[in-house]
Amino acid sequence: METGECIIKPRHDYGYKPDSKILYDVIVVGGGIVGFASAMYAGRLGLNTLIIGEQFGGNINLPYVVENYPGYIAIGGRLLAKRVEDHAKDYDIDILNEKVIKIETGKNFKVYTKEETFSSKTVIYATGTTLKHLNVPGEKEFENKGVSYCALCEGPLFKNKVVGVVGGGDSAVKEAILLTQYAKKVYLIVRKDKLRAEPINIEHLEGYVKKGHVEILYETNVKEIKGDKLVTHVVLDKSHKGKKELEINGLFIYIGHIPQSELAKEAGVKLNEKEEVIINRNSETNIPGFYAAGDVADTKFKQAITGVAEGVHAAYNAYEHITHCCINGKS
Amino acid sequence: METGECIIKPRHDYGYKPDSKILYDVIVVGGGIVGFASAMYAGRLGLNTLIIGEQFGGNINLPYVVENYPGYIAIGGRLLAKRVEDHAKDYDIDILNEKVIKIETGKNFKVYTKEETFSSKTVIYATGTTLKHLNVPGEKEFENKGVSYCALCEGPLFKNKVVGVVGGGDSAVKEAILLTQYAKKVYLIVRKDKLRAEPINIEHLEGYVKKGHVEILYETNVKEIKGDKLVTHVVLDKSHKGKKELEINGLFIYIGHIPQSELAKEAGVKLNEKEEVIINRNSETNIPGFYAAGDVADTKFKQAITGVAEGVHAAYNAYEHITHCCINGKS
Repeated sequence: METGECIIKPRHDYGYKPDSKILYDVIVVGGGIVGFASAMYAGRLGLNTLIIGEQFGGNINLPYVVENYPGYIAIGGRLLAKRVEDHAKDYDIDILNEKVIKIETGKNFKVYTKEETFSSKTVIYATGTTLKHLNVPGEKEFENKGVSYCALCEGPLFKNKVVGVVGGGDSAVKEAILLTQYAKKVYLIVRKDKLRAEPINIEHLEGYVKKGHVEILYETNVKEIKGDKLVTHVVLDKSHKGKKELEINGLFIYIGHIPQSELAKEAGVKLNEKEEVIINRNSETNIPGFYAAGDVADTKFKQAITGVAEGVHAAYNAYEHITHCCINGKS
Repeated sequence: METGECIIKPRHDYGYKPDSKILYDVIVVGGGIVGFASAMYAGRLGLNTLIIGEQFGGNINLPYVVENYPGYIAIGGRLLAKRVEDHAKDYDIDILNEKVIKIETGKNFKVYTKEETFSSKTVIYATGTTLKHLNVPGEKEFENKGVSYCALCEGPLFKNKVVGVVGGGDSAVKEAILLTQYAKKVYLIVRKDKLRAEPINIEHLEGYVKKGHVEILYETNVKEIKGDKLVTHVVLDKSHKGKKELEINGLFIYIGHIPQSELAKEAGVKLNEKEEVIINRNSETNIPGFYAAGDVADTKFKQAITGVAEGVHAAYNAYEHITHCCINGKS
């Protein structure tokens, strides 16, 4: 066995309980892979750290397989999230599984959950994104009755059935590929006249298109979702084989993400026109001591690895902000 | 077993042979973890990619254990390098184990090794750093005869002996800790009056100081290294226990890094006052199509994870540069 081949367990497998009476060095808001990587580094740097997240793992929980986190040729999304969470737990940080409802800027920051208020010298904001909805009739009515935003979660329910996927980006293409594992036919319903996905994923998809397992309907929109107890068909704005109604059992919606930036905005943090938090190379926002990282930030190319690195920069800059000092192993 | 728990082998375990007759999309210069992560992403993005590196793995080969790459609680440095190299080999990229001696900017870039010249539309420059030398009498003479720049490589030769480590940064502290595994006594010789290392590493070191296994000599410099066939002692500029000569069997030097930026500079790329390549958040330099990433770049806090993320941004921006198009799964 090579050095380090074994999977090492964290020194303790729990987060310490948070304490609303102390002044934390750092509060990380968001329990995704970026939040936990930030908390891990803050812990390493000896900062008194609390991480508060509503949904541990975040969006990286959704993909069945992650093939673009350098160092792992392929790893389940949930497992990668767990690995980073365990990595953070290897340090003495406090962990709270709650929703943050407000952040206040002042001499120190105040971070509110429904029950408690915590204080800190710095905040790392890593709340990620939520999935966009179509906002068409039937979408809300049939949620979890055929309408889904998670192929990994609900794909197995559609064994040998017919499903639609809405979207033309990378997520939509990857989820369409995953759904071929279950469904006998997958329609990919694309608003534009082409896909905007990673070339390697388009190449994989094309293999299924050739076999007739996937069919792509370009320049087509879903106008309505219909059904009885469960979804039975969707109404399109363009005919397919002479009909505007397409018979499907499930519809998976991947038309984009909405940055979860409201709490930052309310705290006075500047956003761009896409409602993303504006950061610099040090993950600093316009408010000193308030950092942001990951999908919620205004980075052009958002990947797990780039978000994690932003979290690391945020933790280091929080350290400098608090200690007025510096570390640099490199110089 | 959880999804993805197994260690997946790359689809092929070789790099394809490079071809000097074709025009590559990307040539990555540098075979460290950042170079291979860049090449992996370029391969994923469907770019025709060649990576040329003199020393595969680079500086990450040196540390015995890496505990700060999010997703691995602890992994051997060499193994982490191998994991990322294997990850890159999972895609159809060409790999050449050679030294690059020149890069020319023009309509296309030309990258020269001693024997061949390769052409490309873009360059990702990830050459890293080399270790600084003390430049004192005896340093060259006793290299590999007691003078070393790699505790992991040569530490085991000093079992039950006395060694010195020169430096006060993170690398010096970590290497001093590692050397306690072998040497009966480790002197840490620090120019300044304090250490500049990650708090968690200082904390570990202090444990050894308390036990008398490590002794720190602050505000002290090595003026000369003396010996016979092997190192026997060093001459200090400040007395220790009444003597300016310290008896040691080995001296490990970690006083900083020199960016390997000469080839970039010769190609017209702008450097900062530390001779680091100036990049922006997209890993772009002043020359369109010429990107830089990792320790050679002007990032404030340099870590394996942040360098890897810079390589990913470089690969993506090379893709945009070549295709004049964009991917964005997130919007």
